[in-house]
Amino acid sequence: MPPRKKAGASSQFDASEVMQPVQALRGRMDAAGSSRKRTLEEVGVSGVSKEVQHMGAEDVSAEIEAICMRAVASIMRGDGFSYMMPSRVASNQMYVKELDRVVLKEKMLERVFSNASSARKTAITTRLMQIVLELCSKGIHVTKRDLFYTDVKLFKQQTESDDVLDDVACMVGCTRSSLNVVASEKGIVVGKLIFEDDGDTIDCTKMGMGGKAIPPSIDRVTNVRGDAQFILLIEKDAAFMRLAEDRFYNDYPCVIISGKGQPDVATRLFLNKVRSALNVPILGLFDADPYGLKILSVYMKGSKNMSYDSINLTTPDIKWLGVRPSDLDKYSIPQQCRLEMSEHDLKTGRELLEEDFIKANPKWHRELELMVKTKVKAEIQALSSFGFQYLSKTYLPRKLKEGDWI
Amino acid sequence: MPPRKKAGASSQFDASEVMQPVQALRGRMDAAGSSRKRTLEEVGVSGVSKEVQHMGAEDVSAEIEAICMRAVASIMRGDGFSYMMPSRVASNQMYVKELDRVVLKEKMLERVFSNASSARKTAITTRLMQIVLELCSKGIHVTKRDLFYTDVKLFKQQTESDDVLDDVACMVGCTRSSLNVVASEKGIVVGKLIFEDDGDTIDCTKMGMGGKAIPPSIDRVTNVRGDAQFILLIEKDAAFMRLAEDRFYNDYPCVIISGKGQPDVATRLFLNKVRSALNVPILGLFDADPYGLKILSVYMKGSKNMSYDSINLTTPDIKWLGVRPSDLDKYSIPQQCRLEMSEHDLKTGRELLEEDFIKANPKWHRELELMVKTKVKAEIQALSSFGFQYLSKTYLPRKLKEGDWI
Repeated sequence: MPPRKKAGASSQFDASEVMQPVQALRGRMDAAGSSRKRTLEEVGVSGVSKEVQHMGAEDVSAEIEAICMRAVASIMRGDGFSYMMPSRVASNQMYVKELDRVVLKEKMLERVFSNASSARKTAITTRLMQIVLELCSKGIHVTKRDLFYTDVKLFKQQTESDDVLDDVACMVGCTRSSLNVVASEKGIVVGKLIFEDDGDTIDCTKMGMGGKAIPPSIDRVTNVRGDAQFILLIEKDAAFMRLAEDRFYNDYPCVIISGKGQPDVATRLFLNKVRSALNVPILGLFDADPYGLKILSVYMKGSKNMSYDSINLTTPDIKWLGVRPSDLDKYSIPQQCRLEMSEHDLKTGRELLEEDFIKANPKWHRELELMVKTKVKAEIQALSSFGFQYLSKTYLPRKLKEGDWI
Repeated sequence: MPPRKKAGASSQFDASEVMQPVQALRGRMDAAGSSRKRTLEEVGVSGVSKEVQHMGAEDVSAEIEAICMRAVASIMRGDGFSYMMPSRVASNQMYVKELDRVVLKEKMLERVFSNASSARKTAITTRLMQIVLELCSKGIHVTKRDLFYTDVKLFKQQTESDDVLDDVACMVGCTRSSLNVVASEKGIVVGKLIFEDDGDTIDCTKMGMGGKAIPPSIDRVTNVRGDAQFILLIEKDAAFMRLAEDRFYNDYPCVIISGKGQPDVATRLFLNKVRSALNVPILGLFDADPYGLKILSVYMKGSKNMSYDSINLTTPDIKWLGVRPSDLDKYSIPQQCRLEMSEHDLKTGRELLEEDFIKANPKWHRELELMVKTKVKAEIQALSSFGFQYLSKTYLPRKLKEGDWI
């Protein structure tokens, strides 16, 4: 057997040369001051709700107490028991082009206890605030499922407690994670990144092949640092593992993050936090199919359901590195690795063509048009047809060297 | 706001006292020499295939070369092109009571190239061995999906390359991971455990709340050590997170592992490796429903499809700590946290009552009978109805102290 080769830079590419376009992109980011996302106030959009922000446990507790005091005062005055909160219905959501994300408009909702249709929701709101107060005082984090089980009799369905929890976040004016309610973990990270998680120092260059599970409570992640020059955001974990094993980040200093398909809230918050801390560009590697683009859009635009926190959950400036429909010919992907799109794929593709965020980027629109026209899709794994290390040794270095992202 | 309490041992329980039953259990394990699983040869069962074993890249390469040389010699002799391999059909599988797992019987299969029905499978077998040789010589690991994409034209469907890959493992006489083909990672681990992953030292007490993702290639995990006194195997990640945040393992020295639902191959191999290295008992915390028991059975019995490697993939001696149907009354779980079993649940439960591994353990059988009789199920989260830290501060310490497992 030949001696085991240690994964290293292929001689075909010179690492310093390869990194030049990324460095140039980073320079342009610095010049444009794009490292910090703009807020609603800076853009000066009117008729919208104040955006929620991350709050510490003490501030959340104080705000909940203030809300309850107002409710009590109203009851004492004889005006009854109710809560005022921003409405999260679809008609109260709005896409702001300057921010490139969906935000809540200013319509408010009064949730009245004396009304038969909202009495139970008012009770749920009160109970949830009580539980959140307890979480904040104890400094512990729980999942939405745990929350539901604290009072099954009142909540009845988990969707009800989940839904009202978002209302509470909106009313308090904080992110959902500020309420100490977290999602279960799903994403993974590896590469030139160091951070503290609840007091433990995590060095993501020393995580073997497995990577580090992205922590569920993002507010315990502090002191994010590292000499990565870009973030490589990967749709699926098979490609993540390939790059982690080849220690791709040693040759091309980067942080590699994957949400393993549809990203959860923790992964999106983490991506956002790492980007803000390092101020480096994000390059996305996704399947060349409508589903890949949809997942990319969740990272960029977030989900409508949580548009009240779009500032923390969205990362608008992701570059689409690949696998793009035009790559299939450019990189001569063999015919047998290209898959025919189903009717459902085509329908999703055509719907995406009408989406604001695709229209806003003519290059993306052209790629998607090409996909729908040729009716051909491909997965990241299609690159394996040239050898398992083609992705890490040829495809990505070439993409980086040519600055081939849009 | 009251000062944030640091998660620590509840005063209700004395940690050293709590740990006594676990230590006694461990002592009995040592006395019985149960730390090492018995092999087929030791038990002396006849009429079975030799069990596969973990092999290094060099041995795998040598064996593949030998197989190919035999095929070439047969062709040269004029006897045609074929491979001999153990048959993996259901009729060639057998449950061995002494080992408490399913193994392959000795029927062999000849895969003949000149037969129209097996020509393509013979070609796929040859191609896969060629690819595995390449993986072994380069020392890299790939997923089954990557493998499929190296020759879509020949493999056509991923199920075909997956299936033949198991044949190749059987034929070579090694585990699937010895072929350098790995599953994508899913499981997580935290607690009193240290190991090396591809040269990096991983200290699982220093993984914050997020835990460490279980590495996909188990053969790179070496030097497993730590002063845990038991392994807590948890079905779902919500309970895992609760215990990780409360640093449960600091009070009650243990390793906490979760496969996040149905466990993948990597998690099962990892559990097995940790248990062998530490020689400590495994206590299982699963939902009190038929699905929880089914998942527990996958850890213990493995899946029939991979019975050729049952020795590495199964961990027979898992104690059922909870949540058991009898716990619901014993711990006074409120009625509203108990869920009614569906018809499908009941059917699954009744089927389980007939399974060998349930019948072999009268205490398990009684619990399952109780479940089916009362038609009531409950999730681990039902314990949250007593407060979020009830699991880590009361339920588990009490279970440990009373040695309440079966």
